[in-house]
Amino acid sequence: MDKSIISGVCFTSLKEISDTRGSVLHMIRNDSPEFSQFGECYFSEVLPGVIKAWKLHSLQTQNLALPIGRIQIVLFDMRKSSSTFKKIEILEMGRPDKYFRLLIPPGICYGFKCIGTEKALIVNCADIPYTPSESSIYPINSNEIPYNWDENI
Amino acid sequence: MDKSIISGVCFTSLKEISDTRGSVLHMIRNDSPEFSQFGECYFSEVLPGVIKAWKLHSLQTQNLALPIGRIQIVLFDMRKSSSTFKKIEILEMGRPDKYFRLLIPPGICYGFKCIGTEKALIVNCADIPYTPSESSIYPINSNEIPYNWDENI
Repeated sequence: MDKSIISGVCFTSLKEISDTRGSVLHMIRNDSPEFSQFGECYFSEVLPGVIKAWKLHSLQTQNLALPIGRIQIVLFDMRKSSSTFKKIEILEMGRPDKYFRLLIPPGICYGFKCIGTEKALIVNCADIPYTPSESSIYPINSNEIPYNWDENI
Repeated sequence: MDKSIISGVCFTSLKEISDTRGSVLHMIRNDSPEFSQFGECYFSEVLPGVIKAWKLHSLQTQNLALPIGRIQIVLFDMRKSSSTFKKIEILEMGRPDKYFRLLIPPGICYGFKCIGTEKALIVNCADIPYTPSESSIYPINSNEIPYNWDENI
């Protein structure tokens, strides 16, 4: 498990068991070190070149893995009480070299862009089921987030 | 939730929230009717034309969904005490018309073939983590299972 520059964010290498018929890919187990509880598993497909940003949860913790495609994911710490308040982290996710699980605690705003020519599939095993009241969306060009998708990709 | 011809197997339609940027796809929540507990989430990729068969679990319950590609899945009831002992069920899974979650209890042997030109990705939210001692593999042409993959596809 590796620490991020943002407090509480962590990434854990995942195993890909290669097979000429198609790989088996680990995601998360109930005895994984940072697993707390299971709320919901769902998928978000991102077509090539598409940006999905920004999303913020006040209660839900995300556990993301990317079995298909490649994304750039950007995290922004919006927790006033955090030692890394307002820090930005930019990561790439995708097989085979960057196949890991990303834990994003509540209070971290995040967005992603599908890079490469194949559509991406993000799998999220969140700790609570989707609850509209704890989920917010910020516009892609929000003034509150010092990151410009157009300039940076 | 729909019942299968095999006792204890069930399939539940899942929601695909279409979006021109890429769909959001439901899988399973902790308040889904047939959810019991979370053990492990993992992925099995199946390349076009490939058959992965047969798998049997003595304890683990599978909850499968197919966000990518299309498969034919064959189930065979090996539970001597079951009212549907030795029954076979053949299903197709895949978006957009057959996007559902398939619950396979222990004691049902299963195998799948990727049909179509796109690789398939099976997501499994099983009720216990992978445990080699409760998992068996039967050869693809096993005499114990009255199904011939070559003849039928």
